[in-house]
Amino acid sequence: MTSTLWKGRFREATNRLVESFTASIRFDQRLSRYDIEGSIAHCRMLAQQGLLTEGEADTLVQGLGEILREIEHGALVFDDAQEDVHMAIEARLTEKVGEVGGKLHAGRSRNDQVALDLRLFLRDEILGTGNDLRDLQRTLVTQAKAHLGVVMPGFTHLQHAQAVLFSHHLMAYYEMCRRDRQRLEGCLGRVNVSPLGSAALAGTSLPIDREATARLLGFPEVSRNSIDAVSDRDFVIEFAAAAAMIMMHLSRMAEEIILWTSQEFRYLEIQETFCTGSSIMPQKKNPDVPELVRGKSGRVFGHLMGLLTMMKGLPLSYNRDLQEDKEALFDTIDTVRQSVVIMARLWEHVIVKAERLEETAAAGNTLATDLAEYLVRNGMPFRQAHRTVGNLVRHCLDQGKEITGLHVDELKRFSQAFQDDVPAILTARRSVESRRSAGGTATVEVEKAIAQAERELEGGGD
Amino acid sequence: MTSTLWKGRFREATNRLVESFTASIRFDQRLSRYDIEGSIAHCRMLAQQGLLTEGEADTLVQGLGEILREIEHGALVFDDAQEDVHMAIEARLTEKVGEVGGKLHAGRSRNDQVALDLRLFLRDEILGTGNDLRDLQRTLVTQAKAHLGVVMPGFTHLQHAQAVLFSHHLMAYYEMCRRDRQRLEGCLGRVNVSPLGSAALAGTSLPIDREATARLLGFPEVSRNSIDAVSDRDFVIEFAAAAAMIMMHLSRMAEEIILWTSQEFRYLEIQETFCTGSSIMPQKKNPDVPELVRGKSGRVFGHLMGLLTMMKGLPLSYNRDLQEDKEALFDTIDTVRQSVVIMARLWEHVIVKAERLEETAAAGNTLATDLAEYLVRNGMPFRQAHRTVGNLVRHCLDQGKEITGLHVDELKRFSQAFQDDVPAILTARRSVESRRSAGGTATVEVEKAIAQAERELEGGGD
Amino acid sequence: MTSTLWKGRFREATNRLVESFTASIRFDQRLSRYDIEGSIAHCRMLAQQGLLTEGEADTLVQGLGEILREIEHGALVFDDAQEDVHMAIEARLTEKVGEVGGKLHAGRSRNDQVALDLRLFLRDEILGTGNDLRDLQRTLVTQAKAHLGVVMPGFTHLQHAQAVLFSHHLMAYYEMCRRDRQRLEGCLGRVNVSPLGSAALAGTSLPIDREATARLLGFPEVSRNSIDAVSDRDFVIEFAAAAAMIMMHLSRMAEEIILWTSQEFRYLEIQETFCTGSSIMPQKKNPDVPELVRGKSGRVFGHLMGLLTMMKGLPLSYNRDLQEDKEALFDTIDTVRQSVVIMARLWEHVIVKAERLEETAAAGNTLATDLAEYLVRNGMPFRQAHRTVGNLVRHCLDQGKEITGLHVDELKRFSQAFQDDVPAILTARRSVESRRSAGGTATVEVEKAIAQAERELEGGGD
Amino acid sequence: MTSTLWKGRFREATNRLVESFTASIRFDQRLSRYDIEGSIAHCRMLAQQGLLTEGEADTLVQGLGEILREIEHGALVFDDAQEDVHMAIEARLTEKVGEVGGKLHAGRSRNDQVALDLRLFLRDEILGTGNDLRDLQRTLVTQAKAHLGVVMPGFTHLQHAQAVLFSHHLMAYYEMCRRDRQRLEGCLGRVNVSPLGSAALAGTSLPIDREATARLLGFPEVSRNSIDAVSDRDFVIEFAAAAAMIMMHLSRMAEEIILWTSQEFRYLEIQETFCTGSSIMPQKKNPDVPELVRGKSGRVFGHLMGLLTMMKGLPLSYNRDLQEDKEALFDTIDTVRQSVVIMARLWEHVIVKAERLEETAAAGNTLATDLAEYLVRNGMPFRQAHRTVGNLVRHCLDQGKEITGLHVDELKRFSQAFQDDVPAILTARRSVESRRSAGGTATVEVEKAIAQAERELEGGGD
Repeated sequence: MTSTLWKGRFREATNRLVESFTASIRFDQRLSRYDIEGSIAHCRMLAQQGLLTEGEADTLVQGLGEILREIEHGALVFDDAQEDVHMAIEARLTEKVGEVGGKLHAGRSRNDQVALDLRLFLRDEILGTGNDLRDLQRTLVTQAKAHLGVVMPGFTHLQHAQAVLFSHHLMAYYEMCRRDRQRLEGCLGRVNVSPLGSAALAGTSLPIDREATARLLGFPEVSRNSIDAVSDRDFVIEFAAAAAMIMMHLSRMAEEIILWTSQEFRYLEIQETFCTGSSIMPQKKNPDVPELVRGKSGRVFGHLMGLLTMMKGLPLSYNRDLQEDKEALFDTIDTVRQSVVIMARLWEHVIVKAERLEETAAAGNTLATDLAEYLVRNGMPFRQAHRTVGNLVRHCLDQGKEITGLHVDELKRFSQAFQDDVPAILTARRSVESRRSAGGTATVEVEKAIAQAERELEGGGD
Repeated sequence: MTSTLWKGRFREATNRLVESFTASIRFDQRLSRYDIEGSIAHCRMLAQQGLLTEGEADTLVQGLGEILREIEHGALVFDDAQEDVHMAIEARLTEKVGEVGGKLHAGRSRNDQVALDLRLFLRDEILGTGNDLRDLQRTLVTQAKAHLGVVMPGFTHLQHAQAVLFSHHLMAYYEMCRRDRQRLEGCLGRVNVSPLGSAALAGTSLPIDREATARLLGFPEVSRNSIDAVSDRDFVIEFAAAAAMIMMHLSRMAEEIILWTSQEFRYLEIQETFCTGSSIMPQKKNPDVPELVRGKSGRVFGHLMGLLTMMKGLPLSYNRDLQEDKEALFDTIDTVRQSVVIMARLWEHVIVKAERLEETAAAGNTLATDLAEYLVRNGMPFRQAHRTVGNLVRHCLDQGKEITGLHVDELKRFSQAFQDDVPAILTARRSVESRRSAGGTATVEVEKAIAQAERELEGGGD
Repeated sequence: MTSTLWKGRFREATNRLVESFTASIRFDQRLSRYDIEGSIAHCRMLAQQGLLTEGEADTLVQGLGEILREIEHGALVFDDAQEDVHMAIEARLTEKVGEVGGKLHAGRSRNDQVALDLRLFLRDEILGTGNDLRDLQRTLVTQAKAHLGVVMPGFTHLQHAQAVLFSHHLMAYYEMCRRDRQRLEGCLGRVNVSPLGSAALAGTSLPIDREATARLLGFPEVSRNSIDAVSDRDFVIEFAAAAAMIMMHLSRMAEEIILWTSQEFRYLEIQETFCTGSSIMPQKKNPDVPELVRGKSGRVFGHLMGLLTMMKGLPLSYNRDLQEDKEALFDTIDTVRQSVVIMARLWEHVIVKAERLEETAAAGNTLATDLAEYLVRNGMPFRQAHRTVGNLVRHCLDQGKEITGLHVDELKRFSQAFQDDVPAILTARRSVESRRSAGGTATVEVEKAIAQAERELEGGGD
Repeated sequence: MTSTLWKGRFREATNRLVESFTASIRFDQRLSRYDIEGSIAHCRMLAQQGLLTEGEADTLVQGLGEILREIEHGALVFDDAQEDVHMAIEARLTEKVGEVGGKLHAGRSRNDQVALDLRLFLRDEILGTGNDLRDLQRTLVTQAKAHLGVVMPGFTHLQHAQAVLFSHHLMAYYEMCRRDRQRLEGCLGRVNVSPLGSAALAGTSLPIDREATARLLGFPEVSRNSIDAVSDRDFVIEFAAAAAMIMMHLSRMAEEIILWTSQEFRYLEIQETFCTGSSIMPQKKNPDVPELVRGKSGRVFGHLMGLLTMMKGLPLSYNRDLQEDKEALFDTIDTVRQSVVIMARLWEHVIVKAERLEETAAAGNTLATDLAEYLVRNGMPFRQAHRTVGNLVRHCLDQGKEITGLHVDELKRFSQAFQDDVPAILTARRSVESRRSAGGTATVEVEKAIAQAERELEGGGD
């Protein structure tokens, strides 16, 4: 019964329903490794400060190490009566090492301890998520490089807009991931702060050394206000917001893969091994993976909202409401990381239908803007050029033609500025190559972007 | 390997990562009882329609019954390769009864099957949640009755406003629960519709009888459009919205209990058995239960947002995104039901500090409005009465008095309309009893409300 | 200066910044009609109860009527110093009729008054929204009827699943709107309750008659608990939840229209008058209307979240936080109603590409399930039939054929159960007509659905 | 009629309802200053690149300058037919300068233009919000400094936990604001990127110089992928998330001010000029400002949710859904900035009830932990010390005493480790001063924190 650990003033036992309702051990045992790591650092510091003898510290550290191994081997089974991971480990420690176990909790509280555990845990997971994103970026760059020549219709409003390189489209997702990683990095800076020693809310009268535990645990700084340190879940919410953005990006990527593998688009095909079938319709091969990723965006958005709501209007400092942070955070991490990983794998199991893309690239008069810019280069104000080509498009629609099918003489009827060199620009490839403005879709620009991406991915930078 | 159930057109095995990412068996096994119930009804109907012999139907029904028992006894263990509860049960059935097991899925699809399972499940849970709420209402009424005489300060803006009966305050929560139950009932009507036989999305060419299965499963109606039936998750979202509202109500109740048990308010005390202590501060007795309930409101709000997001912009009909409905729904139900139940129990473990409430009831000049209404009854326009009493309050503040401490002569200096009968009305009890407008706080009105509540709770009505 | 209306106890003037931050007159003036309507009923009741003379009541009612006309003609201009619509109208009334204006507020408070105004307003808007939805349903039915013969591919996972009637697809949306209207009706029942006379939170000591004002204002019932009546915004949130669901449905409809008007789908065309162009690309004709509707779903989901958050953890009774309900509610109503209306108009400006739909209906082997059900009718267990047809589909894919292109002899190689009558069933139309299960896609079923819908729309029922 | 600007291919006029539904001019005119600023830079660059003559550029720039002045003086009135701020300004320009106005739009599209405008606007607003936060921090520091000696009860679970300095509590909020400002800074880095020249989605074939416009507009970098540049609203969402966190912090601060000004707490008093009264209750003085701030948190959370939903599942590149970003962003900015500003002012109008705080600081046995730590310093394991003091607290509760009221002999009955020096530590002040761990509540630590804060606020740093 761990509850004896705080039961001094209580006469009645905790109601069983309350025990079960308030226990967090079912889910916070996921933090046990970090809890033990933190306790070990705390022990070492207590010894350094003379609050434990070296021998006591060794005993405690050894006991903690054994508990970690027990947990890793599934030899330690927790139940609700143990409340939470902190109490459960302290109780087990005392079971193992006796009365000296009761010296571990000097100068700290569960309030700073759980903040510590969460920060240690999240620090690792942020690094892991960053790596997952880098892996996805690598896959995108690999695919962009492999299909560098492929021209396709670019879209606005899901309507054919202008021809672009397929690789240019992929590299747009590279950029989104880049920002996602920047946000994670910013978040990491605010996670990577040691709250240990803030105790319940006010610090402690015992002569602890917070810098020492921070050093042992690899934190570059310690929190500056003890009340804030135990009241604060900004770091969880900031991560959840970054995660929501990642999922939003993935939902867009997923949507496009779903669209592009439809019978109507036929831009991509997903390999069978990445699809599933139907229990009733024998012909079906479904893009379940991107569908689920898209659907999971809601889950992560929901956790973000849940966390913000949880914090709304809470007086300082620690309130038990904060216990609700964990499941939301855990599920956010699992969802995001699994989704990023599987999207990277999915891109490796996709077949790009280059011919179909190319043959569609100029359809829907995607070269109309090229004609307008041609006229501008020949001195016509853009707005007039736009109108001229608009009329020309109108003419094509009435005739059931595409502008690529017009003879130069027909063009000239719309403007004297059209010369005999017009037909030469009226191909999707030519259109793509002409868009050399920085960050544009011309091969030379996309090659630059790929090269820069490769440098970033190798250098571990960005 | 259940995947053989749809693998005819596939040559490659499903990627392990994909198998694990897409499998729902980990959580949808919670629906197994309902899945089997639905399959049994489906079998009976197939036999009635000549699509199975009676003997085949008996074999299948018996096999399904055995599987249910296996599941209930934990004898059937599921793994990801089985994808989902539907495939897992069909596969186990075929294992048990042989080839005839393959006849079960005629005329249906997983798309209508999962909609059926969810509706059967949610129907039960809505009834359960309604009962939980009724139980909470009963507790509120019991407490209201038990403390009928207790006067307390009523609040607006968390400032003392007017004296009210403690019981009147409790009955406000009764009303919230009443609306919650009405919403659940409305939702139930839209849940209680059989989708079975809508098949993949288009119905079936087999001569099934949807009314028959609906009857067997206790559905008063069948869904009217097969595409809608498999695309729709309104019923899940509507429940989530009703649940969010319940949690919002509980969060308000929780907030008040937290406030009222603070050292500053001291209006209530929670019995020890419903509190927990601190790992560091020996004196602490914390209101963890209401804190957690308050915090859990975010969780349910989040699920609602997640579900709405999941559905946003989905083309018809079934998309795999919909699989994300289950975990959100399950957690919503568990959270709401546990929270409602524990709040009912909490009210039974609360000690009402009647003396403290009474002594505070008139503090903060809560009787000022009574004075103003006194003047109105004596013919003064309300606005002038308000101003007069406002000045009087100003005077009290300057003198460091409360209006209950004023002598009638002081009152008369502010208005000739004050008579010698004024002091008689200047008690919290008198104030409360005077507010006899319908739904007001006078004892007679609160007794009426309690009586009506008791009738409703007994009659099973409302 | 309206603030004199409550300034009796105050010595200092309200800070200008505070005045501007707290004023609601900028937006709540939208409620002025309802505020006046409520005040007129309140006056009549006060006179009936002897709290006003008939002459005073007539004066007040006449003054209120004049103010309504001033507002309607834009002759009354409000500013922040007037705080809110209630104070502004009372101040203007007193300006017009003198001291007797100060008698209006007897027996009520702004707390019950604003709840009343909101309920009167929302009652009208719910009816309006219901009518808008009915209008959209009518348009859907009209289009379903007009295109009753058109066959198209039905989708699951955005992959071709089975052939369906275009009209059947439209009628799925009819069903969604039907549920939306049911939810609005349920909500209306909870809106349509008079809070007037609950006063600040506790009722009043003045002899008012709440049933009388309720009757005058057309409310079938009065609220039962005065504290609840001023604390409650369930009715606003319940409407917001219903509105979020409507927007979710519209976002799905919008998504499909966007998909279907893409160059790849070409299922629909939107008439020019319902599209806009591009500032740079002369050929563009964009589906802006459905895009904006889809985007606006977020707005309404957000308001729902905002309202739930606002209420989370609020102690009873009225708190100023509640003022935040109005802008969210107003924008929710405007967004939903405009979106419903424009979607109805959009469907009238859409050209259905019947030939394209028909020619695509069987593509992607959408008839595979028909083959499997054929085998089941000939006695084969469904699972074996599924596998057989799956192999057949595999064969087609390898050969670059569709199953509709197979000769009966090829079919027979896969199963002896295939007879010479197979080819006859292998058309999209035949497939559609065979799905006669209740709510299925056969013409006869869709006709039934249309007929029922027409009855509902005429009868004003459902 | 601005619509002629893209009407070339259209034969039919835009439907009036569509015009009104799709127009953004009502709200995006707020961007006009930035739109003009961007157009001026674009002109200068076009001239530099030979796409305009210097004379043409001068004409355009002068015209644009005049339009800006017209707008600032309210001389230019917009209507829905002008669609959006971009078209409206181009149309007005052409009205003023004739045909040459049509040259302005060469090499850009509304897609990159609106991204540019939003980024310019948001850049300013982020800096402004940062300044507002700094101002709030200054007020907090000023108050912390002014009340440095004041001891109060620190809370966990809203129960008295340990005595702390009032200033320490205030400095916790300083830390929250510090993180808020860090997040804004991170966001600013991602806002401060020029999208101009990405054109519709693909860049342009005209020889523009994107670095040049970026330089003119003060952007340190240009966006790297044209498709991403017009598809991306990360910067809006990231700001909304940072804003949600700010509002969450303010809601906590608001909650505490509301609690602390209640009749039960009486820790603070808000000056009259920052309160309002009641229309019915003459005695009321309500904390409307913090209540509204608390309520407004929902509004901003809702906008964040709305924006995420808007982006969910959108295919690249620009879609009209994105137009919905503006109103959400504008209202987010206005709400956050007003709330931050008014909270700073509110703290200046608050009276700290030092005596009341001091007299409450030790109530509720807040010194129990000091006793336990005393025992630890005397060699007792913490867990045993906790139990010992717990029993002592139990004893006090039974006797109706506080531990500060115990005689040293009574203490000794609970443990021999208690010495005659115990009473000396049993004061709130002594307790506070003993908590010298880094970031703890001892005056010396709080003074350090204040000094560091002052350095940060002066230096413009952090």
